[in-house]
Amino acid sequence: MSRVVKLAVIPGDGIGPEVIAEAEKVLDAVTAASDVVFEKTRFSLGAGRFLETGDTLTDDDLAAIAAHDAILLGAVGGTPGDPRLKDANIERGLLLRLRFSLDHYVNLRPSKLFVGAPGPLAAPGEIDFVVVREGTEGPYVGNGGAIRKGTPQEVANETSVNTAFGVERVVRYAFELAERRRKKLTLVHKTNVLVHAGAIWQRIVNEIAAEHPEVTVDYLHVDAATIFLVTDPSRFDVIVTDNLFGDILTDLAGAVTGGIGLAASGNINPDGAFPSMFEPVHGSAPDIAGQQKADPTAAILSIALLLDHLGLSAESARVSAAVEADIAARSAARTTAEIGSAITARL
Amino acid sequence: MSRVVKLAVIPGDGIGPEVIAEAEKVLDAVTAASDVVFEKTRFSLGAGRFLETGDTLTDDDLAAIAAHDAILLGAVGGTPGDPRLKDANIERGLLLRLRFSLDHYVNLRPSKLFVGAPGPLAAPGEIDFVVVREGTEGPYVGNGGAIRKGTPQEVANETSVNTAFGVERVVRYAFELAERRRKKLTLVHKTNVLVHAGAIWQRIVNEIAAEHPEVTVDYLHVDAATIFLVTDPSRFDVIVTDNLFGDILTDLAGAVTGGIGLAASGNINPDGAFPSMFEPVHGSAPDIAGQQKADPTAAILSIALLLDHLGLSAESARVSAAVEADIAARSAARTTAEIGSAITARL
Ligand SMILES: CC(C)[C@H](C(=O)O)[C@@H](O)C(=O)O
Ligand SMILES: CC(C)[C@H](C(=O)O)[C@@H](O)C(=O)O
Repeated sequence: MSRVVKLAVIPGDGIGPEVIAEAEKVLDAVTAASDVVFEKTRFSLGAGRFLETGDTLTDDDLAAIAAHDAILLGAVGGTPGDPRLKDANIERGLLLRLRFSLDHYVNLRPSKLFVGAPGPLAAPGEIDFVVVREGTEGPYVGNGGAIRKGTPQEVANETSVNTAFGVERVVRYAFELAERRRKKLTLVHKTNVLVHAGAIWQRIVNEIAAEHPEVTVDYLHVDAATIFLVTDPSRFDVIVTDNLFGDILTDLAGAVTGGIGLAASGNINPDGAFPSMFEPVHGSAPDIAGQQKADPTAAILSIALLLDHLGLSAESARVSAAVEADIAARSAARTTAEIGSAITARL
Repeated sequence: MSRVVKLAVIPGDGIGPEVIAEAEKVLDAVTAASDVVFEKTRFSLGAGRFLETGDTLTDDDLAAIAAHDAILLGAVGGTPGDPRLKDANIERGLLLRLRFSLDHYVNLRPSKLFVGAPGPLAAPGEIDFVVVREGTEGPYVGNGGAIRKGTPQEVANETSVNTAFGVERVVRYAFELAERRRKKLTLVHKTNVLVHAGAIWQRIVNEIAAEHPEVTVDYLHVDAATIFLVTDPSRFDVIVTDNLFGDILTDLAGAVTGGIGLAASGNINPDGAFPSMFEPVHGSAPDIAGQQKADPTAAILSIALLLDHLGLSAESARVSAAVEADIAARSAARTTAEIGSAITARL
């Protein structure tokens, strides 16, 4: 009897549909011979849908998506400056709403420099680390507001909310991941300045560290961490950090390891109460949409993360290996579909 | 009759005294033939002073410093993990207190890649931009707190406070600077997520932009900005951003332009109500202190910023030119004092 995995697919806007098509190609191929069947439901969401219907993510959409086992998302967001999107915030209303509603408290972002990958560093060395970014609180909660809005007396506050509950669960996850890797964990924050938010992160890391004596723990201020990402990225194994610092560090890490065309991510609910969501780190890039110029590799590596999350580690490893082989052999410019097909052929 | 400039000198901790000695060497030499006399007062402040007396920055210290025309600061901060400093926050109590009390609302951080400077990028291109970092509000205000501290039910909040008053004055400064440079201004924020803080920055930049039709304005999310700093730093001319994003971007920018051994900064009160303060971006590096290993160039370039601020632009240009020539000729390892003397000789 075969195992059925209900997969919600949200291709989204811009290059989203193109890269998701290639990711599905790979998913279909790698599971063809296995006893796992992916039952896919397609959700048309994003700026395109908003412009047609005025909806970003309805409660019904959310309930329907939540009834799946996992989610594959391409990219969402319209053309920057599009006046019709002026008051829409697709990022908050769709992407962040999914992450928050589905309690994706681990935003998992591996950074690996594949042999042959282009990159801006002259001497990158070996790069292989994972950022465990908190996904449901911190500066991302949207708490705050403004008084005297639009006047010279305006005061606008934005509050980062950090709970022991929220910090502890993601820090635990990071330590467990470090145990399975090179046993090194770096907390990144700005404890000397953000004294309130910093103290709770530092306290909880110290506490959980005591349960993991084999894991070497260090701490870096976020500003120093960006320096090391370009001067000594090999020093990192597992980085644990808050929602905003994680956002910043992973874009930089993506750039350093060959561009965000290669960076995959998982929005994970480790408890399994809600479906986890896999997506490339890149955005919808409307300027190159529909031209087969986008690199689908990040979406394809998101498939590897999805498979791994579902316990299909052999299939996951095959996808990673196929990507690795493809990157090592890259030379001429190829279309989105050509890259997807080449990786599929290597499975 | 000669002009007297009262200069408060705070060598600080770690490598601070070493690099400040070289900066003073350069200052003395470049003003020797001019009609400006620097009257220096030395303030012993930092972790060392705290350990001796328990004081970080007393009201008397602050009043005495404020009575000067300008401040030169080396670096402050003790050895990380020193148990005697556990409850001291020298950064907040001294450095940030100076910046806030003296209303240093412009934290000016130029980034220039000098010919011959080492750097991590394979193909950096020409780099010459200035980050105008807000210095007196944003996430740095220390507003916030925790409830149920130390328990599993703790909630810790940290509030970024952004006022129209505070944003407008630094944005105006940035536009005026852009007018004198390549007329390009980039606002960096995270408006799609930090909706309250982001909106006030975006509104005010739009408003001031209307007064500067010759300046090209663009916007980048902070995550995207870090990517461009390593893949296309030449695109930047003037960056304006908040206190925290400015902290992150300028450390990364320092790394990209040869390391923070070369990065200078000015904490400026453009109104002249309080003395402005000039300091290298780097910290006190206690691990290499007293060994003549530190590069004094950042401190020396801070002298160039100081001179420029005082209207001594010819002297400022001589210092910059001497540094530029020294960097172009660098080869063998030199001591802190050797670098300082070599630059002095080139004035
Ligand atoms: C689109 C945006 C809301 C999002 C984020 O900030 O998390 C993106 O930058 C990311 O990293 O996935
Ligand atoms: C020491 C610290 C408080 C300071 C800051 O965050 O502003 C430093 O990193 C800097 O950039 O000058």
